[in-house]
Amino acid sequence: MTWHHHHVLDLDDFSREEIEAVLETASAMKEVLTRPVPKVHTLRGKRVFSLFYEPSTRTRASFELAAKTLSAEVVGITAQVSSVVKGESLLDTIKTLEALGADAIVLRHPEAGAPYLAARYCRASIVNAGDGAHAHPTQALLDIFSLRQRLGDLEGLKVVIVGDILHSRVARSNIWGLKALGARVVLSGPPTLLPMSFADAYAGVEVEWDLERALEGAGAVIALRLQWERQQDLIPSLEEYVAFYQLNAQRLSRARPGAPILHPGPVNEGVEIDPEVARGPQSLIDEQVTNGVAVRMALLYLLLGGAHE
Amino acid sequence: MTWHHHHVLDLDDFSREEIEAVLETASAMKEVLTRPVPKVHTLRGKRVFSLFYEPSTRTRASFELAAKTLSAEVVGITAQVSSVVKGESLLDTIKTLEALGADAIVLRHPEAGAPYLAARYCRASIVNAGDGAHAHPTQALLDIFSLRQRLGDLEGLKVVIVGDILHSRVARSNIWGLKALGARVVLSGPPTLLPMSFADAYAGVEVEWDLERALEGAGAVIALRLQWERQQDLIPSLEEYVAFYQLNAQRLSRARPGAPILHPGPVNEGVEIDPEVARGPQSLIDEQVTNGVAVRMALLYLLLGGAHE
Amino acid sequence: MTWHHHHVLDLDDFSREEIEAVLETASAMKEVLTRPVPKVHTLRGKRVFSLFYEPSTRTRASFELAAKTLSAEVVGITAQVSSVVKGESLLDTIKTLEALGADAIVLRHPEAGAPYLAARYCRASIVNAGDGAHAHPTQALLDIFSLRQRLGDLEGLKVVIVGDILHSRVARSNIWGLKALGARVVLSGPPTLLPMSFADAYAGVEVEWDLERALEGAGAVIALRLQWERQQDLIPSLEEYVAFYQLNAQRLSRARPGAPILHPGPVNEGVEIDPEVARGPQSLIDEQVTNGVAVRMALLYLLLGGAHE
Repeated sequence: MTWHHHHVLDLDDFSREEIEAVLETASAMKEVLTRPVPKVHTLRGKRVFSLFYEPSTRTRASFELAAKTLSAEVVGITAQVSSVVKGESLLDTIKTLEALGADAIVLRHPEAGAPYLAARYCRASIVNAGDGAHAHPTQALLDIFSLRQRLGDLEGLKVVIVGDILHSRVARSNIWGLKALGARVVLSGPPTLLPMSFADAYAGVEVEWDLERALEGAGAVIALRLQWERQQDLIPSLEEYVAFYQLNAQRLSRARPGAPILHPGPVNEGVEIDPEVARGPQSLIDEQVTNGVAVRMALLYLLLGGAHE
Repeated sequence: MTWHHHHVLDLDDFSREEIEAVLETASAMKEVLTRPVPKVHTLRGKRVFSLFYEPSTRTRASFELAAKTLSAEVVGITAQVSSVVKGESLLDTIKTLEALGADAIVLRHPEAGAPYLAARYCRASIVNAGDGAHAHPTQALLDIFSLRQRLGDLEGLKVVIVGDILHSRVARSNIWGLKALGARVVLSGPPTLLPMSFADAYAGVEVEWDLERALEGAGAVIALRLQWERQQDLIPSLEEYVAFYQLNAQRLSRARPGAPILHPGPVNEGVEIDPEVARGPQSLIDEQVTNGVAVRMALLYLLLGGAHE
Repeated sequence: MTWHHHHVLDLDDFSREEIEAVLETASAMKEVLTRPVPKVHTLRGKRVFSLFYEPSTRTRASFELAAKTLSAEVVGITAQVSSVVKGESLLDTIKTLEALGADAIVLRHPEAGAPYLAARYCRASIVNAGDGAHAHPTQALLDIFSLRQRLGDLEGLKVVIVGDILHSRVARSNIWGLKALGARVVLSGPPTLLPMSFADAYAGVEVEWDLERALEGAGAVIALRLQWERQQDLIPSLEEYVAFYQLNAQRLSRARPGAPILHPGPVNEGVEIDPEVARGPQSLIDEQVTNGVAVRMALLYLLLGGAHE
């Protein structure tokens, strides 16, 4: 199997073969999850720490459940209740977890690049669970896994990512992963949240500010969460955003029939996506969450157990 | 066995037979807890989430221990460290936990009715661990279990519930449960915290503002916690409350000899109950906590495992 | 084996033989930690609660990992998310955990003496994980274990403890433990943080305000964390503290060659210790963290399992 990563920091250094190794392993893990007793001994005795410097329900719970399903020992640390208030630095905490016997550290941090710093000084595997606006590779892998399960091969598929691209770690990681699998990535959103420079930064990626034009013939759509409180200065008004960029049935009719709709959650219903679409038959939103456990099991297995078997 | 519930939201829809099924199962679970290794495999692979939007030591720890004793996978989420700060709605969180594979969600929420909303949109079993001033069915069941263990049949037993009835979810759930088992329920407390309307709302329940009269011949007493900070406008003074409604030895002497004393905890010693009574031989307060684990094990077993065996 | 403790509150009542029993058991536990699957069934079914009223990453994670490695059931409670905000008292919480079936309660509390109060009213074993400025016995035991692993017998060894002795629970517990093993303890730090009364309080302990003189011929050095924010009134300036009391290579050259350097962490690099020293070959700082898990496993084993086997 093609797999030589010791950390999962972003998908920019994942080859097509490596992504496919993750997807295949995730399929096997998804089967485990459907068993009457969804639990295997694969990572018994391995120590997985979740270290979250930002709040999270779904990502933290998903990783902890993935690790527990593989019988790893899980210890959760959240910034609010840890020594972070004493001014303990990230590196000091990482070194401590390493000395405590960490095999993997799942890290979410508000600063872009934090997991790279951690990986440079640490023997344990670092899994980036979101660093600032930079990367969220496990979200991208679960998005891709969900698309693959629904559509099969993604080669040539037109995937539209719509919303606040500028501040989205989900978008950035998806661009790398989707491109590696040969998909055609089209970004859409208001110019203030989607600078034309994105087209230059990522070879082959298209920028289309007009959402309706972007959706023409799309094979899949990823809607992003609008952090309205944070982006007020960049958007004339919430009403205007909804008027031009909300994913609704009328707009979606321009995409291919049955094109799956993804969203990293939590959804602002009625803002970036119409409730009817979010809960409709094309929505993969709930399945993404379920698949997230399988994908994270696959990554932990490949990082901690796969090489030795 | 008579048991057809998929959720435990309150005791208003529990028949006498169903409550007795819980009590019998809890007896078996209590035996498990006395073993040298108090652990069984009954719920291996089941996923139990505790989702607490209000702080709690005893109820959360009790549920988590109950689930772990049955070998379920437990993931705890507290509002302070979860995505709740991002404005994620209750329903979105519930749907996420369901998609993560939740078999049961133990929910505490400051708003009355929240667990009902959750149950309507969720396939996982919802266990109400307290919703606003509305209901706290597992507390009532452990109170009833504790009374049954001490007294046997509750038919015709006079049970006095004293304190801030108006804001007490513990009182409301106990009323339903005690009535179902044929007990005679008498409520006592200052008129501002015990409107006469309670007697109309619950058929057969008596309201007696004079605590000493209420205690006459009582077979058991449940004292409630006074949330003094919150009820200042409803009580002339703390001194006056203590003077008229504190459960002390002198007042207790009007009840039947040996009548057990319960309290949901944490106790404000010297406010709603005299320390001498709280720690005396009639007090079941510590035993209630112990029994709580057995009762919660029983409920999780009946919800998640009982039907299949 | 010489072991008759039901609680671990401080080392002042530990004999040399008892400390050696801990160190020997910790050696065996350290071997467990190096196995491919570092997990044993020794404490299966035992309930260990961690109850932290102060933030902590390393100590809490270390205890929880130690308990899980021995297969105990672990439930963590932190003051920020517990009923502490409801004004629940320490004793009430302790009694609740006892009634929930606690075999051991690992307690950190900002008030000196809190674990003693807990131990007086509780049948479960109390392990002091730090109480105010008073004691931190498991930190001292892991320091001593780390020294023993590196140096063998500590009889007659000159150990210098440098820094804010006045507010250090780590220093106080180390004094007792090191003296019990026959080491010569020399305390160093600015007079405002190291009153001469320490020499009177602990028979045989020396106070030497001049760090360079203190280090002369030292066989080991324990540097303490400076809580600069808290001690501003007691130190002329941070610069002056660094100038006179930072442990750097030049000063360290006065100690025995290879003398090990310890620090309880988290390190303020560039304040109490030079980064070059903290990360140099004499530093045991990372090893202390690793040894901490073994030492805590040993204590939990001796408290909960050792007597019965």
